[in-house]
Amino acid sequence: MPGNKFGLEFSISIFGESHGKCVGVLIDGCPAGLKISENDIQKELDKRIPKDEKIISSRIEEDKVEVLSGIYQGFSTGAPICMIVRNKDVIDADYEEIKFKPRPGHADYPAWVKYGGFNDYRGGGIFSGRLTVPFIMAGAIAKKLLKQLNIEVLAHTIEIAGIKIKEVSIEDIKRKVYLNPMRCADEEAAILMRKAIIKAAEEGDSVGGIVEGLAINLPAGIGEPIFDSLDSDLAKILFSIPGVKGVEFGLGFKASRVKGSINNDEYILVNGKIKTLTNNAGGILGGLSTGMPISVKIAFKPPSSIKKKQKTVNLKTFKEDWIEVKGRHDPCIVPKAVPVVEACIAITLCDHLIRAGLIPKVIKNE
Amino acid sequence: MPGNKFGLEFSISIFGESHGKCVGVLIDGCPAGLKISENDIQKELDKRIPKDEKIISSRIEEDKVEVLSGIYQGFSTGAPICMIVRNKDVIDADYEEIKFKPRPGHADYPAWVKYGGFNDYRGGGIFSGRLTVPFIMAGAIAKKLLKQLNIEVLAHTIEIAGIKIKEVSIEDIKRKVYLNPMRCADEEAAILMRKAIIKAAEEGDSVGGIVEGLAINLPAGIGEPIFDSLDSDLAKILFSIPGVKGVEFGLGFKASRVKGSINNDEYILVNGKIKTLTNNAGGILGGLSTGMPISVKIAFKPPSSIKKKQKTVNLKTFKEDWIEVKGRHDPCIVPKAVPVVEACIAITLCDHLIRAGLIPKVIKNE
Amino acid sequence: MPGNKFGLEFSISIFGESHGKCVGVLIDGCPAGLKISENDIQKELDKRIPKDEKIISSRIEEDKVEVLSGIYQGFSTGAPICMIVRNKDVIDADYEEIKFKPRPGHADYPAWVKYGGFNDYRGGGIFSGRLTVPFIMAGAIAKKLLKQLNIEVLAHTIEIAGIKIKEVSIEDIKRKVYLNPMRCADEEAAILMRKAIIKAAEEGDSVGGIVEGLAINLPAGIGEPIFDSLDSDLAKILFSIPGVKGVEFGLGFKASRVKGSINNDEYILVNGKIKTLTNNAGGILGGLSTGMPISVKIAFKPPSSIKKKQKTVNLKTFKEDWIEVKGRHDPCIVPKAVPVVEACIAITLCDHLIRAGLIPKVIKNE
Amino acid sequence: MPGNKFGLEFSISIFGESHGKCVGVLIDGCPAGLKISENDIQKELDKRIPKDEKIISSRIEEDKVEVLSGIYQGFSTGAPICMIVRNKDVIDADYEEIKFKPRPGHADYPAWVKYGGFNDYRGGGIFSGRLTVPFIMAGAIAKKLLKQLNIEVLAHTIEIAGIKIKEVSIEDIKRKVYLNPMRCADEEAAILMRKAIIKAAEEGDSVGGIVEGLAINLPAGIGEPIFDSLDSDLAKILFSIPGVKGVEFGLGFKASRVKGSINNDEYILVNGKIKTLTNNAGGILGGLSTGMPISVKIAFKPPSSIKKKQKTVNLKTFKEDWIEVKGRHDPCIVPKAVPVVEACIAITLCDHLIRAGLIPKVIKNE
Repeated sequence: MPGNKFGLEFSISIFGESHGKCVGVLIDGCPAGLKISENDIQKELDKRIPKDEKIISSRIEEDKVEVLSGIYQGFSTGAPICMIVRNKDVIDADYEEIKFKPRPGHADYPAWVKYGGFNDYRGGGIFSGRLTVPFIMAGAIAKKLLKQLNIEVLAHTIEIAGIKIKEVSIEDIKRKVYLNPMRCADEEAAILMRKAIIKAAEEGDSVGGIVEGLAINLPAGIGEPIFDSLDSDLAKILFSIPGVKGVEFGLGFKASRVKGSINNDEYILVNGKIKTLTNNAGGILGGLSTGMPISVKIAFKPPSSIKKKQKTVNLKTFKEDWIEVKGRHDPCIVPKAVPVVEACIAITLCDHLIRAGLIPKVIKNE
Repeated sequence: MPGNKFGLEFSISIFGESHGKCVGVLIDGCPAGLKISENDIQKELDKRIPKDEKIISSRIEEDKVEVLSGIYQGFSTGAPICMIVRNKDVIDADYEEIKFKPRPGHADYPAWVKYGGFNDYRGGGIFSGRLTVPFIMAGAIAKKLLKQLNIEVLAHTIEIAGIKIKEVSIEDIKRKVYLNPMRCADEEAAILMRKAIIKAAEEGDSVGGIVEGLAINLPAGIGEPIFDSLDSDLAKILFSIPGVKGVEFGLGFKASRVKGSINNDEYILVNGKIKTLTNNAGGILGGLSTGMPISVKIAFKPPSSIKKKQKTVNLKTFKEDWIEVKGRHDPCIVPKAVPVVEACIAITLCDHLIRAGLIPKVIKNE
Repeated sequence: MPGNKFGLEFSISIFGESHGKCVGVLIDGCPAGLKISENDIQKELDKRIPKDEKIISSRIEEDKVEVLSGIYQGFSTGAPICMIVRNKDVIDADYEEIKFKPRPGHADYPAWVKYGGFNDYRGGGIFSGRLTVPFIMAGAIAKKLLKQLNIEVLAHTIEIAGIKIKEVSIEDIKRKVYLNPMRCADEEAAILMRKAIIKAAEEGDSVGGIVEGLAINLPAGIGEPIFDSLDSDLAKILFSIPGVKGVEFGLGFKASRVKGSINNDEYILVNGKIKTLTNNAGGILGGLSTGMPISVKIAFKPPSSIKKKQKTVNLKTFKEDWIEVKGRHDPCIVPKAVPVVEACIAITLCDHLIRAGLIPKVIKNE
Repeated sequence: MPGNKFGLEFSISIFGESHGKCVGVLIDGCPAGLKISENDIQKELDKRIPKDEKIISSRIEEDKVEVLSGIYQGFSTGAPICMIVRNKDVIDADYEEIKFKPRPGHADYPAWVKYGGFNDYRGGGIFSGRLTVPFIMAGAIAKKLLKQLNIEVLAHTIEIAGIKIKEVSIEDIKRKVYLNPMRCADEEAAILMRKAIIKAAEEGDSVGGIVEGLAINLPAGIGEPIFDSLDSDLAKILFSIPGVKGVEFGLGFKASRVKGSINNDEYILVNGKIKTLTNNAGGILGGLSTGMPISVKIAFKPPSSIKKKQKTVNLKTFKEDWIEVKGRHDPCIVPKAVPVVEACIAITLCDHLIRAGLIPKVIKNE
């Protein structure tokens, strides 16, 4: 039954429920000597929720990190790091109906089967999007480790409700993403996306979208062949984010429609370093990094909690029934997902860089 | 560095190289008492290579399974099962050039970095498509276990070189897929696909495509929340197949473009059983099976080994150079990949069904 | 670097430090539907510290369990269970000296090397005996699961400071162990042991001893061959308890001095059940349970923290130096270790019984 | 059910049966660039069987290693290394009786329960001492890796049938152990031991003994706190050797009978290096190496297969019965176990040194 652990050398375990006491993460394998403060983690947590009440559900979550272990006098000790965020603003009443009336598109029904009805169903319990908070806490530490090697992880919204961004540069992404609530480097598209979300919300409906994740300055040769390939591990953690339905690297599905002579990235020398002319591979060949930027696209479905009346089956009476999901819910989770994608990539790279011996077991501080 | 193991309870480890002595798989966790013969495994292996010399490279591999351990008197013993297929028809000379001239689109260059030049580069070594043979051997056993629960795994080609199939039924897939070399349930599309492959081959080029994998009769509630979700584990193993660049479940990337009210699968009762009206989720919600068929689509890039002249960097002289890949190579790997996709799904489901306690540790034979 | 996880299906991860905020445990894999209250856990925690100020160090630890996740409305939910105990009564000043003057017999010096001086050295940090508190919390839940199968785990002191107990029955152990501060089923020996401890304490010295652990009603056939054998896994977790220097099963080291005809346990039928005449094997053959009681003996060294003056090397000046360990320390850890041994055995059996499919994934409550 | 894997970074999986086709090992995680030949492995295998027909069973096993993968042109490639030894001289008839008449002291009965009768019972199947052959193959590679760091692993017989050796030096052990069939550094004791074995064999009986394992030049700080402590992992793998009933480090069980002031190893400086005056800890404190030699003692029971008539229960008739084990069996396994203990220690240290980053992922060869 276990399954809440990810990573071999930088290993993270997630716990908590949407409406329980807290959500948390236990990191086993963080090297000793990493300078880290609660503030470093808080800053990443604060990126999760766009300050835009029109597109974000009213549940106010002032997510305050609390470090329980593994950090002493401002440095990681090498012992497991446990961090939690206490849950607030929890109104149980909203969720009593869903106990026996599973919401279409949610894990309510399969979870009821799996756990024989003992699962904490409030707000989806462990299946809630709130469980991405621990991803971000772990990601904050992973990012600090990556910085030791000058590796940077980025993510940005590239499509919402069918509205695509125009081409943007890495510089655009670095500068602009967190300036608008869409987490989008194309401000004009961001405005249209926001409108589309608001419109869907007004109709009691929801919309989905696509996030691109990037990693810059990753050296070549990172990853393992076969099962622990870099793309396998990235896909594994990305599909752990609630709502993800597709993952592709580089050209992705489009690669299946071009010829080999187009898709192959030819090798060239740039300032004495081996690079590729194109990066259709998205920085990964045979499961190993090529030294070019990692590029991965992640498709998010529209949130399942909508106001519209939908058919369901009542698990108590075992008869067909209707449900209208109450409370306010996010009409689009893509903006919240952007820093989560960053975290997932950072965690995975960190694990593989420690495995490769490139991040040492004790960080040197000068 | 390890990374060649997949699965918690039905655990498989892969070894061997394209041009070494053999390729093999070690299965740890197969329940005792499963009736199994070398012939069961051989039948699956034989599905891998379409008997069509126009589309398959000339390397004749009469893949004969050899069981080294774990099966006694026609039944699994509960001990680890080791199986190998010896390599034949290996001409090393073909590959001497690639030692220092990495082929664009292959793992040659990142592998050279990772292993400091010690990797067995012949035919791509452990990164070769030949390493899918062990997947199929393990899959053969997984399928026999799934049959105990009446669960069936299918796969079929849905697109090659941009040529898409028309809609096909489950019955079509069951009956027709292995009747044509495209592994395609739409015979008309299959003819066009084959032509496109032959044309690409004549141009010294290659084409890609998309495979759909399906699992039928899987009960609801299988999988784990967060990291070992069913979609996470399926994606992890599917991205382990060489050449995969994208994976999506159900509507997949299209789900990001429809509204929640369209995407949500409403619950209904069919003959007293809970089903969903649609199956946009591809049979997975919150990482757990819903009881509807699992549907996953996998994008394969065009093979990287092409005859056309391409730029590379010579690793000995560290100067830009040219390469024309010699020998005959598959102009499209999609047909060979179809039974590999079946194997991957079977292995993953088997692992999760043992974890769920639905496949017992000793198979009852009456 | 990770290494704080034990168990495949009932998996526990430990975190926290002696003088940090808390010590805690994360359990991943507890079946859903187990009736459990904080009180069940508190009762086990309360067994750890004998109420006898003469033999226990003055550090008053009112260990109050706090459940952070995984239990809802009195039942386990199937989600990870996180539990902590906050640390109190922590006086950092006591430990400033040991930062650079490693105590003989403690992990201070190798930890300083391993973590480059970044480890939380206060009270031994993660190497402290206080880290056995999480063992007991996890053990409390494991015991409740074992009770489902009528399996009982016991432990008792059989030797302290060379004073051995007379032969005792299982009934004696069940009734008497927690009635005296020695956790000893032989009251007369217990009085002598206590005197020996007090005498050692008065001399500024410490004493060791031996604990026997037992498991009753475990069915035959539990465990795995080779590496995850029952004795391998029990030994692994038992050597994780600070201060353990030896582990033996059944006759143990004495078995190496008798003949096979004496050591072999012959099979007989008792009330239609297969039993053995003797139990020299301690209930384990070939790594599998035989159906007879598990019996394991664990040797604890005398605690390293003693008042006597000892040689050390100052890590700052890199010169030989002297240390007298300040503060009050336990002159014997054996009594505190008894419930920890129970917990270790319970955790290990629980893991293997879930792996064997004998503890289901959802507990039936009638 | 799986459980045949050991190690996180230098991970070994064992397969095969006593009377099947072969026994083998799969190593995942051997760094690339290690110079290794089949002869290196053969030399270790040849140490297993003393050339002394009086004390060794007549089953002639010319164990010839066959490397199936992972080594190319004399160097490890970084890919999994699979090695097998084919079984010869297998006479199945000898074992037909034990199918339903479990031998006292063997795994026959619990294995029959666990695997529902499907296990390969011939010669004990996977529970046979023959499964130590793969340990030695893996150990041969581990030793070569340790040599990179000048670390040496030794083992020697210190007691057989109650006959103890006199004190011996490290130099004695290095020089003399493989010169006599007892694998004993004290030649006079060796002669007495051999006589005791021969006498027991003549009586149709068997004897046990104790092996000491040592590791020299291991740096301080190797191992992990809590569960993956060096002693935990060593104990885990040592209890995986068939016939082991006790494991102790340093003073071991004797440590429980001395005072702390005696047991503590005081720190001193020797040629500018931190050492301890004594080594009662056996080189391990808090699960980490101290920089002093690792010393571990392992108790082996007398072999269970004896000619004497013993009670058993017939599993077919479910009635009490008698058994006299036929064929020739080793009257003492201690001599054969000595190189196995070396292998176990080498494998464990190798795993932990890779985890600590001290053995690199690519070996530099000059």
